[in-house]
Amino acid sequence: MAKLFLLCRVIPAFRSVCGEDGVSLGAAVREQHGRDESVHRCRPPDVVVWPRSVEEVSALAKICHHHHLPIIPFGTGTGLEGGVGALKGGVCFSLRNMDRVLDLHQEDFDVSVEPGVTRKGLNSYLRDTGLWFPVDPGADASLCGMAATSASGTNAVRYGTMRENVLNLEVVLADGSIIHTAGRGRRPRKTSAGYNLTNLFVGSEGTLGVITKTTLRLYGVPEAMVSAVCTFPSVQAAVDSTVQVLQTGVPIARIEFLDDVMIDACNSFNSLAYPVAPTLFLEFHGTEKSLEEQVTVTEEITQANGGSDFSWARDAETRGRLWKARHDAWYAALALRPGCKAYSTDVCVPLSRLPQIIVETKEDLMLNGLTGPIAGHVGDGNFHCIMVMDPNDQDEVIRVHEFTERLARRALALDGTCTGEHGVGLGKRALLREEMGPLAIEVMQGLKATLDPKNLMNPGKVL
Amino acid sequence: MAKLFLLCRVIPAFRSVCGEDGVSLGAAVREQHGRDESVHRCRPPDVVVWPRSVEEVSALAKICHHHHLPIIPFGTGTGLEGGVGALKGGVCFSLRNMDRVLDLHQEDFDVSVEPGVTRKGLNSYLRDTGLWFPVDPGADASLCGMAATSASGTNAVRYGTMRENVLNLEVVLADGSIIHTAGRGRRPRKTSAGYNLTNLFVGSEGTLGVITKTTLRLYGVPEAMVSAVCTFPSVQAAVDSTVQVLQTGVPIARIEFLDDVMIDACNSFNSLAYPVAPTLFLEFHGTEKSLEEQVTVTEEITQANGGSDFSWARDAETRGRLWKARHDAWYAALALRPGCKAYSTDVCVPLSRLPQIIVETKEDLMLNGLTGPIAGHVGDGNFHCIMVMDPNDQDEVIRVHEFTERLARRALALDGTCTGEHGVGLGKRALLREEMGPLAIEVMQGLKATLDPKNLMNPGKVL
Repeated sequence: MAKLFLLCRVIPAFRSVCGEDGVSLGAAVREQHGRDESVHRCRPPDVVVWPRSVEEVSALAKICHHHHLPIIPFGTGTGLEGGVGALKGGVCFSLRNMDRVLDLHQEDFDVSVEPGVTRKGLNSYLRDTGLWFPVDPGADASLCGMAATSASGTNAVRYGTMRENVLNLEVVLADGSIIHTAGRGRRPRKTSAGYNLTNLFVGSEGTLGVITKTTLRLYGVPEAMVSAVCTFPSVQAAVDSTVQVLQTGVPIARIEFLDDVMIDACNSFNSLAYPVAPTLFLEFHGTEKSLEEQVTVTEEITQANGGSDFSWARDAETRGRLWKARHDAWYAALALRPGCKAYSTDVCVPLSRLPQIIVETKEDLMLNGLTGPIAGHVGDGNFHCIMVMDPNDQDEVIRVHEFTERLARRALALDGTCTGEHGVGLGKRALLREEMGPLAIEVMQGLKATLDPKNLMNPGKVL
Repeated sequence: MAKLFLLCRVIPAFRSVCGEDGVSLGAAVREQHGRDESVHRCRPPDVVVWPRSVEEVSALAKICHHHHLPIIPFGTGTGLEGGVGALKGGVCFSLRNMDRVLDLHQEDFDVSVEPGVTRKGLNSYLRDTGLWFPVDPGADASLCGMAATSASGTNAVRYGTMRENVLNLEVVLADGSIIHTAGRGRRPRKTSAGYNLTNLFVGSEGTLGVITKTTLRLYGVPEAMVSAVCTFPSVQAAVDSTVQVLQTGVPIARIEFLDDVMIDACNSFNSLAYPVAPTLFLEFHGTEKSLEEQVTVTEEITQANGGSDFSWARDAETRGRLWKARHDAWYAALALRPGCKAYSTDVCVPLSRLPQIIVETKEDLMLNGLTGPIAGHVGDGNFHCIMVMDPNDQDEVIRVHEFTERLARRALALDGTCTGEHGVGLGKRALLREEMGPLAIEVMQGLKATLDPKNLMNPGKVL
């Protein structure tokens, strides 16, 4: 710590944390960790800095590099796999003071944002432009954090994940040097110029550098939206409907699955009366006319698969009411056991494997007496179990941990991945090794060693 | 060469090239280089091998690695930037004998292919499944080669490029080790598990490893297609129409721009009578009903921008006739100067910069007495000048070279890239440095050194 207080004299951003008297650390750590919603134990850094520019981030990184201090980038702390824990202490770079929306190009459908800008903040900024940024992981996460964790969410089936929507990144490397992954200021919609550095940093979870700016692809706000809900006799019937909807080319914007337990929880939480059965929530974006057809085709498909209680909504208010169940799933799950905490685990498998893995997972939950309603982005084969548990019940915590590992291995056995969108962080490092195999892990380790030879960038995560 | 003939005794694949008498090299080199359509000088390898399995590729790579022999992967040789030239001699790995379509999963919309499978070959294989693979760079390239060069083409505006459509790659590294970039056999539609190795190898142009298998995302064949052609008073009017079509969310499948010179060439070549003016060729995919609306909206937009002679076609034959001009653009350009050769150069800029760069480029062509009709994937801001020149006229060759450099620098000055889809290869290495800046190039060099410390993989390309 003495070394850190010494550093405060060099950089204004350091002073703004520690102050001249060096006492504000406690508050900084609380700020950093109060919002980590994962079950991972709080691992505070030694100090938090709030740089205000890429130059300050670079200067701070150079000092950390010189003194072998770990660097932990921090956006909004909404990640779920312990990505912001400071396992080896060090300096947390909280980036909330870099919060400008830069360089909006309406005609080119792109915008650049600093790391303090959240997805809701950006969409609010874009309100009068007819454009929006669709990637929506649920939380109001920072967009640079979403790039760092390769976030996706409900809209990914139509608009892709962060991987498909980041055009360029400004990154401060471990030694303080500043790079632009697609070249400074560049924003073509496609490129084949050299190695794809942009997508090397997207999903690197702060282990390769600090993302200080991201250039994003934007979309025209759809002329109209329609939402629908439909109940199915089985998981298989819901998945079959999903496959057939995708097969026909309906450009569906959202297709979300909730299992019977999740629906039951939502009914209780929101005083709703959905049938307690596997359910799909759908959303269609397009012109008024095209929506009619999308809905008709989808309704025919769901009916042919035994779907019933197909209800749909066109105006914003009714759509909001319809989706309330899905949007409040997290809180509805928590309400199943008051006083408990929740942890959302995530896997992703090829579509055809969904019925098998969901049925087996539900049996596993029952067998082990665990509460884990299921909600998922079924169009991508991605789903979550929201594990509701008593964090003081050590036995239950262990059973949840063992369950999530079994779930991930079940996904791996079905050609899937241990994480579709939450990332590896702290919690899934061992599973990543099983997923990738030793040689691919060696390649990842080689890349990490090249970019961060001192292992200072968010150490102990991913690999 | 003595060393290579010695090697022939070890590996059957080597024997199949050199034979026991070691004389078939000439034919092999001709096979390799007969199809390189770029203007880059033929640089033959010392030997060509035709491995039949990933194990043979691995065994051959180990021998090359041990003896410090360069490895040049070869798919169909349809690349345009000299990517298959053997600058330092060495061993060309021709992969045409690995030509199986593997593991088609219709319900999951994915398939794996070996490197000998071309895009037309795959689509022919898929004919009865209701699925197709849309990425279409023009040439009937091998799909693994398309992954290696990050190919795209006319459909990218709707379906994305190879970057968005490769789920997994099997890669043999320089030392002969075999990795799977997303883990062996994995094919979830999305993942956030570890570094994105898949997209590090997509677009690496053979400089990081030999791609021996690629897992691709497939799409449902659209129920119907409609094509249209429309003439504009100016480049600006054509681009404005494009931006507005994208803005309204019309899910346009193709939107291709041809300049007046290109249209004139096409008219002559195919005895057509399109007005000699900036022209858009469009294609819409969807249901019968949705197509009507897409066409109506697009026609309204083009008319509001002064577009005229809007003609459209629904049945396959009329569509084929309509698109013939665009499809034959290469040969129409060549026919402008019989006996000459053509070289297609490519840049990509943000949409709003297209009018400026195209107008300036046409002036440049006129001023320097060069023949370079323009055709482009305008929905992505990507366009090509098809440079028709006399390869024996050294002065003209130099003027074309200088022109392509000016064109690339013009794209760079407008926030664009020196290559949207042809790659860097041999021809654009200096431009890549200007585009990326020295620090990002250093990062790329670091990645290359990590994966290929002896610089054996396609040396002298990209970096």
